[in-house]
Amino acid sequence: MGKTRVEAFSDGVIAIIITIMVLELKPKPDTAELAGLKSLLPVFLSYVLSFLYVGIYWNNHHHMFHSTRHVTGGILWANLHLLFWLSLFPFTTAWVGENHHAPMPTAVYGFVLLMAAVAYYILQRAIIAQQGRDSLLAAVVGKDWKGKLSPVLYLAAIPLAFVSSWISDGLFIFVALMWLVPDRRIERVLAKREKE
Amino acid sequence: MGKTRVEAFSDGVIAIIITIMVLELKPKPDTAELAGLKSLLPVFLSYVLSFLYVGIYWNNHHHMFHSTRHVTGGILWANLHLLFWLSLFPFTTAWVGENHHAPMPTAVYGFVLLMAAVAYYILQRAIIAQQGRDSLLAAVVGKDWKGKLSPVLYLAAIPLAFVSSWISDGLFIFVALMWLVPDRRIERVLAKREKE
Amino acid sequence: MGKTRVEAFSDGVIAIIITIMVLELKPKPDTAELAGLKSLLPVFLSYVLSFLYVGIYWNNHHHMFHSTRHVTGGILWANLHLLFWLSLFPFTTAWVGENHHAPMPTAVYGFVLLMAAVAYYILQRAIIAQQGRDSLLAAVVGKDWKGKLSPVLYLAAIPLAFVSSWISDGLFIFVALMWLVPDRRIERVLAKREKE
Amino acid sequence: MGKTRVEAFSDGVIAIIITIMVLELKPKPDTAELAGLKSLLPVFLSYVLSFLYVGIYWNNHHHMFHSTRHVTGGILWANLHLLFWLSLFPFTTAWVGENHHAPMPTAVYGFVLLMAAVAYYILQRAIIAQQGRDSLLAAVVGKDWKGKLSPVLYLAAIPLAFVSSWISDGLFIFVALMWLVPDRRIERVLAKREKE
Repeated sequence: MGKTRVEAFSDGVIAIIITIMVLELKPKPDTAELAGLKSLLPVFLSYVLSFLYVGIYWNNHHHMFHSTRHVTGGILWANLHLLFWLSLFPFTTAWVGENHHAPMPTAVYGFVLLMAAVAYYILQRAIIAQQGRDSLLAAVVGKDWKGKLSPVLYLAAIPLAFVSSWISDGLFIFVALMWLVPDRRIERVLAKREKE
Repeated sequence: MGKTRVEAFSDGVIAIIITIMVLELKPKPDTAELAGLKSLLPVFLSYVLSFLYVGIYWNNHHHMFHSTRHVTGGILWANLHLLFWLSLFPFTTAWVGENHHAPMPTAVYGFVLLMAAVAYYILQRAIIAQQGRDSLLAAVVGKDWKGKLSPVLYLAAIPLAFVSSWISDGLFIFVALMWLVPDRRIERVLAKREKE
Repeated sequence: MGKTRVEAFSDGVIAIIITIMVLELKPKPDTAELAGLKSLLPVFLSYVLSFLYVGIYWNNHHHMFHSTRHVTGGILWANLHLLFWLSLFPFTTAWVGENHHAPMPTAVYGFVLLMAAVAYYILQRAIIAQQGRDSLLAAVVGKDWKGKLSPVLYLAAIPLAFVSSWISDGLFIFVALMWLVPDRRIERVLAKREKE
Repeated sequence: MGKTRVEAFSDGVIAIIITIMVLELKPKPDTAELAGLKSLLPVFLSYVLSFLYVGIYWNNHHHMFHSTRHVTGGILWANLHLLFWLSLFPFTTAWVGENHHAPMPTAVYGFVLLMAAVAYYILQRAIIAQQGRDSLLAAVVGKDWKGKLSPVLYLAAIPLAFVSSWISDGLFIFVALMWLVPDRRIERVLAKREKE
């Protein structure tokens, strides 16, 4: 089966997730002053972080399906499973935004990040299983140290939120920046294959 | 007429339906504790079930149109009719979520599931009518026992909600799981046709 | 310039419009009874009518662009102009739904329908101007009595809302049904052209 | 890498941004009179202006990617950066709408317009850098006086909002109209290239 509609549907869901998070950013009634903006700062910062994360997921999803040819029923459901956890980002972002530095929302934010990472890993495995160990995706993913380190850091951030939410927030920002650093693996592998 | 835009529009509508349901999952003000999360549990569970159902519909819709070549005006309207009933899922999900185990919301949830199943059946008939009885879709659908059993179970769940909402919820979950079990019909039929 | 992205963007906007209207259909807190559902009936009926209208617009838009080859800057803006008026449907639907049979919301509902019809007409003219008088679209549109009668009826419905909103509602329903009656013009013209 | 999915994702996000802004346009409870509509006028006017701006961005984005062949990781992120600032339009539109002529919301509205213009400029540079100085896009953009004048006017509008919000609003409207004037650069360059 072709992959076009899976990509289109995922694009749609991710586009909606990344956009409806901004609905949380509601101007409080009767505040046309700078103070009103200041009180929205925590909500805004959570929004920026979650926008970054959803952007990273879209980017990686885009790359992953770029090196996928066919999709099976299993891949469709692994993809929906990933979209499910991503769809909880607006909720956790809103909760953290409204209760900045409260341990429970921070821990739940980390838990949903963790589950999304696990879901992404399952999807990646499902695609590689279908494409073969020597497929383009398998070569591109390689050792995947980022994909393996991220869930460990999310997992650490969950209990640490009860020590200090600053540590957890720091870990979330660190992982996001780690993924933002350009990753030339796909382009390198593609260039190498073309040479051979 | 081509089917690309019908698929794209349906993907858009289904992507929005599956995502806006999460807007119901609003953190209550001033609850940054586990208790706040607990109080959201019924809303969350309704969301999971409805996400599953919309996912199943998207999956089946994807398969159905995959084995469709042309669309007629009748198919366009049968498709919009299906999207109409699916668009009511966010409402019924919210109502059930806020009034867990109340008979009326549970019955209405079942009624909308029933109507969506009927609309899906009509759409399927419209496509087969246009494609011919020996088309790929007709072969794939075959006896379609799942498609015939589901509305019967939804129909049973409506009055049973007034006996105990647990029975209805159990039926809804049972039908969802029934569809989740991988269905290799299309892949089998396709493989068989290629051999011939 | 190609038309793919204009179609995709329009599909996206129309898909969102048709779906967010359902957000108005909010279960009232503490009503898990049939009475709660009954109080939502006017909102529901407005939703059904508007869903029908947006569905008709999508259908016609789909047909119109199907017989379009290239788009110009003028067509892009005429299309955005149509989307603007369609984007007001959720607002007018909500206002009518909450104030059933109040003359002002009914008149405004009619006004937005009228402006959408005008915008559709402008878009149609812009495409025909670009495609030529003997293009497929010009042949398909033909005398376009539906397209000419509809704005007249909307225009009549606006002042009549202050006499009785029942008349206006009747006119809105009549126009919707008029468009629902299958219109085989495109299929007939296409079939005829193939013969020649 | 192909550009199809970047276009589709951007279309999705922009379609949602342009549509959810209308959610601000909520009928006040218990106002079925003309007065209720009048009180919504400032919100409506902000909506019209922002709809125009998002429409202009979509139009320009459409043209820019039309003359782009390949996308790199850098372009993907520059695009997400633009979408981030566009995603704040619903917030600033709502804030300005609810506090018409208050200096702070007007200044923030201008700031987000400025940042979107900067993000658009960065994206344009990233694409030209990848495509080469003598690419189609570079030829089309040319001296880009509109792209250079707009941020200057936004920048001026920010402090001027504290003098009189009328000046800032005037500048915002002026820039929007400046972009609305048809720009035949791409069509001219394309026509010229075809001749050669």
